[in-house]
Amino acid sequence: MTEPAGTAPQRLSIFGSTGSIGCNTLDVIRHLGGRQSYEICAITGRDNIDLLARQAIECQAEIAVTANANRYQELKEALSGTGIEVAAGETALIEAAGRDIDWFMAGIVGMAGLAPTLAAIRTGADIALANKECLVSAGELFNREIEKGGGRLLPVDSEHNAIFQVFEDDQRHAIERIILTASGGPFRQRSLEDMATVTPDMAAAHPNWSMGLKISIDSASMFNKALEMIEAKHLFRMSADQVEVVVHPQSVIHSMVGYSDGSILAQLGAPDMRTAIGYCLAFPQRPSLPVERLDFAKLARLDFEAPDEARFPSLRLARQAMQAGGLSGAILNGAKEVALEAFIAGQVGFLEMADIVETVMQKLGAADMTSIDAVFEADGTARILAGEIVGSRTQRPLAT
Amino acid sequence: MTEPAGTAPQRLSIFGSTGSIGCNTLDVIRHLGGRQSYEICAITGRDNIDLLARQAIECQAEIAVTANANRYQELKEALSGTGIEVAAGETALIEAAGRDIDWFMAGIVGMAGLAPTLAAIRTGADIALANKECLVSAGELFNREIEKGGGRLLPVDSEHNAIFQVFEDDQRHAIERIILTASGGPFRQRSLEDMATVTPDMAAAHPNWSMGLKISIDSASMFNKALEMIEAKHLFRMSADQVEVVVHPQSVIHSMVGYSDGSILAQLGAPDMRTAIGYCLAFPQRPSLPVERLDFAKLARLDFEAPDEARFPSLRLARQAMQAGGLSGAILNGAKEVALEAFIAGQVGFLEMADIVETVMQKLGAADMTSIDAVFEADGTARILAGEIVGSRTQRPLAT
Repeated sequence: MTEPAGTAPQRLSIFGSTGSIGCNTLDVIRHLGGRQSYEICAITGRDNIDLLARQAIECQAEIAVTANANRYQELKEALSGTGIEVAAGETALIEAAGRDIDWFMAGIVGMAGLAPTLAAIRTGADIALANKECLVSAGELFNREIEKGGGRLLPVDSEHNAIFQVFEDDQRHAIERIILTASGGPFRQRSLEDMATVTPDMAAAHPNWSMGLKISIDSASMFNKALEMIEAKHLFRMSADQVEVVVHPQSVIHSMVGYSDGSILAQLGAPDMRTAIGYCLAFPQRPSLPVERLDFAKLARLDFEAPDEARFPSLRLARQAMQAGGLSGAILNGAKEVALEAFIAGQVGFLEMADIVETVMQKLGAADMTSIDAVFEADGTARILAGEIVGSRTQRPLAT
Repeated sequence: MTEPAGTAPQRLSIFGSTGSIGCNTLDVIRHLGGRQSYEICAITGRDNIDLLARQAIECQAEIAVTANANRYQELKEALSGTGIEVAAGETALIEAAGRDIDWFMAGIVGMAGLAPTLAAIRTGADIALANKECLVSAGELFNREIEKGGGRLLPVDSEHNAIFQVFEDDQRHAIERIILTASGGPFRQRSLEDMATVTPDMAAAHPNWSMGLKISIDSASMFNKALEMIEAKHLFRMSADQVEVVVHPQSVIHSMVGYSDGSILAQLGAPDMRTAIGYCLAFPQRPSLPVERLDFAKLARLDFEAPDEARFPSLRLARQAMQAGGLSGAILNGAKEVALEAFIAGQVGFLEMADIVETVMQKLGAADMTSIDAVFEADGTARILAGEIVGSRTQRPLAT
C-alpha cells in the first residue's frame, strides 16, 4: 500500500487533527511539500469545529469528521460549498478510518482512539501511533492486528520514537534493554511527605514540555512514564525486565537502547514533536525540518538518577502490569483515569492516585485479552471500581 | 571475500598484535569463539618477541612477523618446532599483509602502518582501521584504494566507531554534521599561561583512558582530536565544516551524528576498546561481549563545553588541513610527530608544539596527493623542517 516518497503523493488520514499532535502533523506536512507530496483523506477532531473546518479547507481533505455527533450541523455549515464531505459521531469516525490510505496518524487521545485505529490498521496502512491507550490497554491485540494488517507501527511519542530510531531490528537478539528517559516532573526532588499535599496546579507545571493538564499531572506522578513502559514493552516486544527507566531532568536524551556489545545507542533532540512526527511521516527516509538543532556547549550538562519507586509507585505498578500481561494494562489505565480525575476535582490527594490504581489492580487480577470487547469491559470495570474507592475515600475528610 | 559469521571461520590478520589494540583484538576473538570462528593468517609485532611468539602459538597463526629485521633469529627460535612461519622486516610485513584474508586489523601505530594496510586493502579484505595515519596523512589515496579493493573500512577508534554505528549511510543526504567528543585532557581547565610551563609527566595523566606517553600528550594538546577530525572527514566523506568537536570530560558519549530532522544519534559506552573491536569483527552482526554496562544513575552527570581554540590551536590547524586537503594532513602529522618528540625531550614547551606545526604548514602549503610516495615525501619534508625549527628554538634558553 505504501508508495516510496517522491513518486505518487502519499494518501494520509489525521485523526485528532485539532490537537497538539494533529497541528504539528499538519505543520510537518506543510514543510515537506504539502499537497504536492501528500493527499489528505480524512481529518477528524471533536469540539474545535472552527479549527477543524479551517484545516480541512487548507489541506483539501476528502472528508472531515467531528467525533461529537451534536456538532454535525455546525461543521456542515462551516464547510458548505467546499466539496468536502462531512460526518459526525463514532461510527462515522470508524468508517473514515477504514478508507484506503497509506499512512494514518492515530492522534486521538484516550480509549476513544482504539476503534478508529483498529479500523485503520485493518486497511494495511502504516500507523503513526500517538495514542497511548492502543498499546497500554490492548497491546497484545493490537500487535496481532498489525501483523495481520501488514502495515508498520511507527511510534510518535518522543521516547518511543527515539528507541525506534536506534533499535536495530535485525540485531534484536543483541538487544539487552531499552532505557526510557523521564524528566522526573516537577516533584522529582520533593519529599514523600510534601507530595501528599500537592495540588493539581502544582502538578501541572512540567519543566520541559508544555502540555495539557491531565498529561502534566500524569508526568508529575510518573504515571505517564508507567504507561510508556507498558507501551514500550508491546511496541518493541520486550520482556518486563528489559524495560528500564532513568530520570534525566533535561529530557535531551529522548531514550536509549542497550546492546550486548556494551554499546548504548541514543537519540537526542530539542523538545519538538515535529522531529518524531516527521520521522514517522517520511520513514524510512529522513526529512529536513526547521526544528532547533542541539548545541551541546549551551546544554552544558545532562543529569541522570535512578527513579524512586517509593515516591513514584506508578513505575512499580507498570512493572506488575507488564509482568501480568493480558488485561492488566487496561485495568491500570482505566483506574488511573478515574484517580486522575478525582485528583483534579480535589477528591483525592496526589499519592492516593497510585493507591487507588494498586487496589483496583489487586482486586481485578489479570485476565487474558480475548477481544477488543474484553478490553473495553476491563477498562469499564476498573473505572467503576476506582470510582467506588474514590467515593469511599471522599466520605472522610482529606488528609491535609 | 567476506563470509557471513557462523559458516566457515573468518580468516584474519592482526597487524600490531602485541600492542593494546592487538591484545584487545585477541581477547575479543577468544570471547567470540576463538579458533572455531576465526582462523589467524598473520600476526605481527615489533620488539616484544616473547609476547608475539606466545600469541602466535595460542592462536595457531600461519605466520608471525616482527617488523624489526634484527629480531628475526629470536622470533625464529621462539617458534621453532611449532610449524608457524616466521619472517621479519618491512618487506615481509607487506608480503604477509597481502595474503588472502577476510578481515585485517590495522593496529600498527604511525606511518609504518601505511604500506602493510595498503597491501591488505588491495586483497579486498575488510579493514578494521586502528592506525590514524592512513587517513590523516593519505586519506584521499586510501579512500580510492578502498573503493578499488572492494572491502569495507571499519573504524576501531572509539569516536569513529561510535559515528559509524549511528551513521545511516543510506540517509547520507540528511546528515548535517558529525560531532566528535573530546575529554579535553588534563589541561581542560588550565589557563593559557599555565599551559606554557607544563611538563610531559603532567601531560601524560589522561583522565579517562590509560594510554601510552605519546598518545596521552597528544590528548592533552588535543592534537589527538585534531587527527581524529581529519580522519573523520575522510572516513565519512564530510566537508571540513561538517566535522565538529565538543568537549565532554566523562567521554561516555563516544561521538554523535546530527541529522536534518533535528535528531542527534549517539553511541555511548564504557571506556573499553573491545566494544569497538568486536563491532568491527562481527560486523554487521552485534556480538556479545563481557564489557562493563553503563549505569546512568551511577554516571550521574555528563558535561559539555565548547573547545577553546585559543588554548588548543591544534583544532584550528586540523580545520585548516581539512579545508586545504591534499598533503596538508601528512604535513600536519609529520610536523606534529617531531614537535611531540621535542616536547618529550624537553627541547620545546607544550604550547610551542602547535607553533611549530603551524609554521611548517604555512611554509609547505598544500599540494595534491598524487601517490603514496608523495605522502611519504611530504611527511619527511615536514619532519625535517619541524626539526630545523626545534633546533633554532633550542639555541635560546626555554621560557620558564
